[in-house]
Amino acid sequence: MMIIMQPGATRAQIEHVIEHIREQRLSPHVIEGVEQTVIGAVGESHAVPTSVFEGLPGVQTVQRISKPYKLASRQFHPHDSVFPLDGFTVGGEEIAVIAGPCSVEGRSHILEIAHAVKEAGANALRGGAFKPRTSPYAFQGLGEEGLEYLAEAREQTGLPVVAEVMAISQIEIMTRYVDVLQIGARNMQNFNLLRAVGETRTPVLLKRGLSATIEELLMSAEYILSGGNHHVILCERGIRTFETATRNTTDINAIPVLKALTHLPVFLDPSHSTGLADYVTAISKAAIAAGADGLIIEVHQDPAHALSDGKQSLTPEAFARLIRQVRAVAEAVERRLAGVPQSATRPV
Amino acid sequence: MMIIMQPGATRAQIEHVIEHIREQRLSPHVIEGVEQTVIGAVGESHAVPTSVFEGLPGVQTVQRISKPYKLASRQFHPHDSVFPLDGFTVGGEEIAVIAGPCSVEGRSHILEIAHAVKEAGANALRGGAFKPRTSPYAFQGLGEEGLEYLAEAREQTGLPVVAEVMAISQIEIMTRYVDVLQIGARNMQNFNLLRAVGETRTPVLLKRGLSATIEELLMSAEYILSGGNHHVILCERGIRTFETATRNTTDINAIPVLKALTHLPVFLDPSHSTGLADYVTAISKAAIAAGADGLIIEVHQDPAHALSDGKQSLTPEAFARLIRQVRAVAEAVERRLAGVPQSATRPV
Amino acid sequence: MMIIMQPGATRAQIEHVIEHIREQRLSPHVIEGVEQTVIGAVGESHAVPTSVFEGLPGVQTVQRISKPYKLASRQFHPHDSVFPLDGFTVGGEEIAVIAGPCSVEGRSHILEIAHAVKEAGANALRGGAFKPRTSPYAFQGLGEEGLEYLAEAREQTGLPVVAEVMAISQIEIMTRYVDVLQIGARNMQNFNLLRAVGETRTPVLLKRGLSATIEELLMSAEYILSGGNHHVILCERGIRTFETATRNTTDINAIPVLKALTHLPVFLDPSHSTGLADYVTAISKAAIAAGADGLIIEVHQDPAHALSDGKQSLTPEAFARLIRQVRAVAEAVERRLAGVPQSATRPV
Amino acid sequence: MMIIMQPGATRAQIEHVIEHIREQRLSPHVIEGVEQTVIGAVGESHAVPTSVFEGLPGVQTVQRISKPYKLASRQFHPHDSVFPLDGFTVGGEEIAVIAGPCSVEGRSHILEIAHAVKEAGANALRGGAFKPRTSPYAFQGLGEEGLEYLAEAREQTGLPVVAEVMAISQIEIMTRYVDVLQIGARNMQNFNLLRAVGETRTPVLLKRGLSATIEELLMSAEYILSGGNHHVILCERGIRTFETATRNTTDINAIPVLKALTHLPVFLDPSHSTGLADYVTAISKAAIAAGADGLIIEVHQDPAHALSDGKQSLTPEAFARLIRQVRAVAEAVERRLAGVPQSATRPV
Repeated sequence: MMIIMQPGATRAQIEHVIEHIREQRLSPHVIEGVEQTVIGAVGESHAVPTSVFEGLPGVQTVQRISKPYKLASRQFHPHDSVFPLDGFTVGGEEIAVIAGPCSVEGRSHILEIAHAVKEAGANALRGGAFKPRTSPYAFQGLGEEGLEYLAEAREQTGLPVVAEVMAISQIEIMTRYVDVLQIGARNMQNFNLLRAVGETRTPVLLKRGLSATIEELLMSAEYILSGGNHHVILCERGIRTFETATRNTTDINAIPVLKALTHLPVFLDPSHSTGLADYVTAISKAAIAAGADGLIIEVHQDPAHALSDGKQSLTPEAFARLIRQVRAVAEAVERRLAGVPQSATRPV
Repeated sequence: MMIIMQPGATRAQIEHVIEHIREQRLSPHVIEGVEQTVIGAVGESHAVPTSVFEGLPGVQTVQRISKPYKLASRQFHPHDSVFPLDGFTVGGEEIAVIAGPCSVEGRSHILEIAHAVKEAGANALRGGAFKPRTSPYAFQGLGEEGLEYLAEAREQTGLPVVAEVMAISQIEIMTRYVDVLQIGARNMQNFNLLRAVGETRTPVLLKRGLSATIEELLMSAEYILSGGNHHVILCERGIRTFETATRNTTDINAIPVLKALTHLPVFLDPSHSTGLADYVTAISKAAIAAGADGLIIEVHQDPAHALSDGKQSLTPEAFARLIRQVRAVAEAVERRLAGVPQSATRPV
Repeated sequence: MMIIMQPGATRAQIEHVIEHIREQRLSPHVIEGVEQTVIGAVGESHAVPTSVFEGLPGVQTVQRISKPYKLASRQFHPHDSVFPLDGFTVGGEEIAVIAGPCSVEGRSHILEIAHAVKEAGANALRGGAFKPRTSPYAFQGLGEEGLEYLAEAREQTGLPVVAEVMAISQIEIMTRYVDVLQIGARNMQNFNLLRAVGETRTPVLLKRGLSATIEELLMSAEYILSGGNHHVILCERGIRTFETATRNTTDINAIPVLKALTHLPVFLDPSHSTGLADYVTAISKAAIAAGADGLIIEVHQDPAHALSDGKQSLTPEAFARLIRQVRAVAEAVERRLAGVPQSATRPV
Repeated sequence: MMIIMQPGATRAQIEHVIEHIREQRLSPHVIEGVEQTVIGAVGESHAVPTSVFEGLPGVQTVQRISKPYKLASRQFHPHDSVFPLDGFTVGGEEIAVIAGPCSVEGRSHILEIAHAVKEAGANALRGGAFKPRTSPYAFQGLGEEGLEYLAEAREQTGLPVVAEVMAISQIEIMTRYVDVLQIGARNMQNFNLLRAVGETRTPVLLKRGLSATIEELLMSAEYILSGGNHHVILCERGIRTFETATRNTTDINAIPVLKALTHLPVFLDPSHSTGLADYVTAISKAAIAAGADGLIIEVHQDPAHALSDGKQSLTPEAFARLIRQVRAVAEAVERRLAGVPQSATRPV
C-alpha cells in the first residue's frame, strides 16, 4: 500500500502515519519527493483496509498496489480454468453458445425454441423462470412451472439449461432443475446471494452489473470462488453510458482485459449489450474476434409476441445465420465452436 | 403509446401494427408525416409491454407516453407524503438528519456515537449490522449482535434507528430491532427484497442505485408501495460517472426532479455521494437548498480507525458544525430542522 | 512519480527502469513489496511524461504524485483570486449573477432583457453573438451585429457583457465589444483558442467540457494562465451521464472540490446543467450553498419564442424570484450578492 | 414532430400549441389519450427548432421524429460512399489500415516508421505535426517542420499521409502536405473548424468526441458535408465511462449502428479506445468482425521513448502480427485488406 501525503504535510503527520503502519504490522518506507512525501507500507496488507490511513491528518490518498482478488486472479492461477458441461467444455479451445428466450412462456413454447436452437448449433438452452423486471406490473415469470418445462426441454434435446436465480430461497429448487445458475446484472453485488451460490457445486454464470467496474466483477466472482465453487463464467452484458442509440454500451475492451486478469472463462451477451436484434450478429462476431469464450443470445420464434425483450431477440433463422458467421470468425482466431467436429467447421 | 414507423414502412406494415394495437384492445390513431408515420395506441396501455410492437416489421421505436409508476407519482397523489417517526415527521416542513457510523463496531462504540450525534442535533441513528462489502475478505458487520447494540443506543438516546437489510431472511429479526429498514444502492433492483419489505409496515429508506435512473428508482419504490407499505423515503447517494476526484457524483438535480415527480420524501446521503469528509458539509447545505427533506450522514468518533468508510466520516465535532450551518440554510429556504423549536433556530 | 512494477517483474526489468529514471535526472527509490515492487522517481518531474516509463517491460502503471497544474493550483497561491469587473468583484465575498438570453436575437430584444435582468438584480449581461449549434441548419447567431447590440445594452444599463468566442479570428473584434470572453464547453480543449485568449488581458469565463474531468478543466485554465491572463473564472455547467430526466447532470461536488484545488473563482450555470427552467432556481440555491462564487443564467422575455434554449430559459419575473431566493441562501452561508448594500440583503 | 402535453393540460393550452404549429406552417394532429394528449406537427419541420414548442404552457416534451441529418443519412443515400485514396479505396470492400506514430518526432524517426509500417502492410501513414495536449507544458508537435518530414515519408514510401488539423489557420498549409485531414476528438464540435474543412476538397477523418453521441457525430459530419466536401471518414475512438481499467471504452456497438445510419465509411482507432498496447490487436480484430471499414493504429519503433502515447503504441513487429491476424478476420467476414491481392490473403 502507498500512502501519498499532502503537499506541506508536517514531520509529525508523517511520523503519525508511520506509527499506524507499524500498528498494522507492516514496514514503512518513506520517499521524500520535491513537493510531496510518499510512504510505502510493505507486508501482508490484504486484510488491512485503506481507511486505516485515509482518515489520518496530512494524508492525501492511499493506493493499494496489489489486486484485491486472489482466487480469481491469473497471477496465482496462470492457466485458463476449463470445466465440462453436458457434452462440451467451457473456457478451453471450444467456444460455447447458449441460446433461448428471455422468459419461458409455456411448455410448447420452450420446447419448440429448444429444438430450433439445438438444430442451429446452440450448446445450451437459456430461459428465465424467475424474471427480474423493473416494473412490479410486468410479467414476472412462470416460476417452478417454468423450471419443469426447461427440464423437459433438456431431456428432449440434451442441451444443458441456464436460468437466472434471483433469491437464496430459489437455489435449492433450481439446482434440481438447471445446469448453470445465472446471477443477473442487478444482483452482481447481492453479496448474500453470491455467498449462497458459492456454497453449491453448480456452475454459475455471473453477469457484470450495469455500472460495475471490471475489478468489482472480479470481486463478486471472488465471493463465489471463496465458497469453494470454482465453476464461474464471467459475462459482459453491456454497461450504462450516455449513448442512447443502443440499450447499453458493449464494453468490448472488457473481453481482453478480463482474459488478461483472470483465468475464468469470459462470455458476452450481445442481446442485452445492444438491446436491438439488428446488431446482435455483428457484436457476436466482435466478441469472438476479441477473444470471448462464449456467447449467450436471446432467441424467440415470434419476437413480436415475446412477453419480454422481443426487441432484442433473434428468430431461429437469424440465429442459424449468426452461428454460421460466428463459426467463420472463430476459425479465423484459431478457435472452434463447441459440438462441431473440427473438420466440419469451414463455412460454405 | 406511440409507435414510430421507419421511413419507408409499407402500407402493409402499418396495417399489421394497427391489427396488433386492436389485439391489445387499444385504439389506433395514424399520423402520416412527410417522411415517417406515427401511430398512437390509445387506451389502458399500462399493462401492455412495448415489446408487443417493438419487434414488428417496419417499426422504428415505441414510446410510452404516461409514466410507468402510479403509486409513487405525484400525478395521482398531489400532496406530499408525510409520516411520523419517533419524535419528528418525515416529508413535511421539518428536515430530518440521520447520523451515525457506517458499521456498528461494538457496544461502547455505538453508544458513544449515538450520544454524540444526539447532542449535535441528529434526529435518528444510522449504523450497519449487516454490511454489503465489495470484498469477501472485508469486515461484514456484527450481525444480530450489532442490532442489539443499536436497540440499546435507541433506548438510551431516544433516537429511532436506521439500518440496512440485505436479505429477505434478515427482515423478521430487523423489524424487531430497527425503526427504518434501509435498502442499499446495490439492492435497489433486488426485486424479491423490495417485495418483501413492501409486505412489512416498517418505513423504508430506499437508496438509488449507482447507475439507476430516476425513473428506475421510482419503479423500485413502486414495488414497495404496491405491497401496501406507504412509508418510503427516497435517497440520492451519488451516481457513477467518469469523474474520479470524488467517489461518486452527487446528482443534485435529482432532488428537485424527484420532488416534482413524486410525493415521497427525498433525502440525500452526502457521505457516499462525495466519499470525502471534506466535502460533506458543502453538499449537505446544497441538498437542503435544493429542496431535500433530510440527510443521512456518516459520523465516527475516530475516522482513522473506522472499520469501514473512514475517509468519508465526520467527527462528532465536524458534524455539530455541519448541523449549525445546515440549520441556517434550512431557514433561508423556509424550512426548519426537526426537533428544534422554531425560535431557537437562528445561528449564532 | 511512482512506477509500479508488475508482479513477477525481473531484477533486470527493475534495473532497466532505474536506468531510465537516472536518464531523466531523477533519483530512484525502490520499495520491494511482498508481491510487487514500486519505484519512486524523485526530482523535477513535471516536464517528464509518464510515457517514458509506461512502455518499459515489466511496468504495470505509472502514477504522477504532484498535480500537473501549477498556476491554477491553490498550493502555490493559497489566497482566492479576486478581480474587479465593472462595478463589482469576482472571487471575493460577493456573489455575482450573470443573466441574459442564450442568443442575441435583435436590438430591441436584447435591450429589453438587459433592462429587465438589471432591474431584477443581475450584475452582468450574457448573450451569444456567435452560437455553437449541433446542427449546421440551426440559427448560428447574429455575429458582429449582435456584438453591437450587446455594446449598446451595456451602455444603457451599465452591465458588463459576457459573450462566447468560438474562433481565434473572432477574438480581436470581441475584445472591442465585450468585457468577458466565454469559452464554451465544446471548446474547453480547443487548445489553440485557449492559448489565444491567454494572450489577451480580457477576463475569461471557462466552461467545463461535457465530459471533462475537474483536473482537465484546471489544465485548460493553465493554458490561459500560462499566457499571462490571470482573470479566469471556472464554470461548472453539467456533465454527461446516463440520466435522461435532465439535459445534463449538475456536478455539484465540483464546486467544493474546485474551491479546494484552485484559487480561481468558481461559477455554476444551472440553465445548462439542468436544461429545464423548472429546476434552475433550486440548483442556483444549491450552488451558492455549496460555495459557488457566481451564477450564469439564461433569461428570455418569451421563452416559447426563443431562437435557442427556450426550454431552459427563465422569464424576467421568474429570474427576479430566483434572485430573492438566492440572496437568502447567500446570507445563510455568510456571503452576499454583488451590487447590493449589505444592510439591504435581508429577504422580506 | 410530436408534442406531448402534460397530464392535466387544459383545452386552452392545447389550442395554444395548435396555433403555434400553424404559425410554423405545419399541420396539427391531435391524439387524446387516457391521461395525456399528444399533438403531431406534420410538414417540413427540419428548420423548426423544438424550442418553439418546448417553452409553451402545458407542454411536457417535444420529440423530433425524423433524423436531424440529411446528407450523412443512409435514408437518402442508400449506397455506401466509396472514394479513392492513393492506391486504395475507402468505404468499399477493402479494409484500410492507417498506421504511424502519435507525433512526428524527427526526420529519421518518421522515415523509419513509415518504411516499417509500409512493409507490415499499412495503407497510409499517420503522424501528428500539431498536437492537442492536455497540458500546456507537454510536447506540442514540430509544426510545419513535421509536415515536411511527413511529405518526405510519403514520397519515399508512396503512403498517403493523415495528420490532425487543430485550427483554421493551419488548413491552408496542411492541405499542401497531407492527404487526409484529421479532426480530433476534442474538436469534433469545433463548428468553425468543421465548416472550414468542409470548404476544402481534402478527405477528412472525423473522430468521435469523448462523450459525443452517435447522432452528434453524424451532425458534425453534416457540417463538413454541407460545405460540399463529401469525403468524410467517421472514426470511433472510445468514449468516456466510469471504467478505469482502460483509457476509454471502445463503443463497438457504434460500428454496426453507424453502418446502418449512414453511408459514410466507419473506422476504429483501437490505440485510443483502449489506451494500452496489449489490447490493441484484440480490439482491431473485433472492429473488423463488427463491420468496420478501416483502422488507425499508433506504431512507434521504441514506445518507451515516444514523446507521446508510448503506452498505447505497438512496435513495428507487433503491428506486423496484428496485420496478419486482422487479415484472417477480414476474410472470415468476406472483406479483404486493401493493397493485398485477394489470392494472397490466406494466413499461413
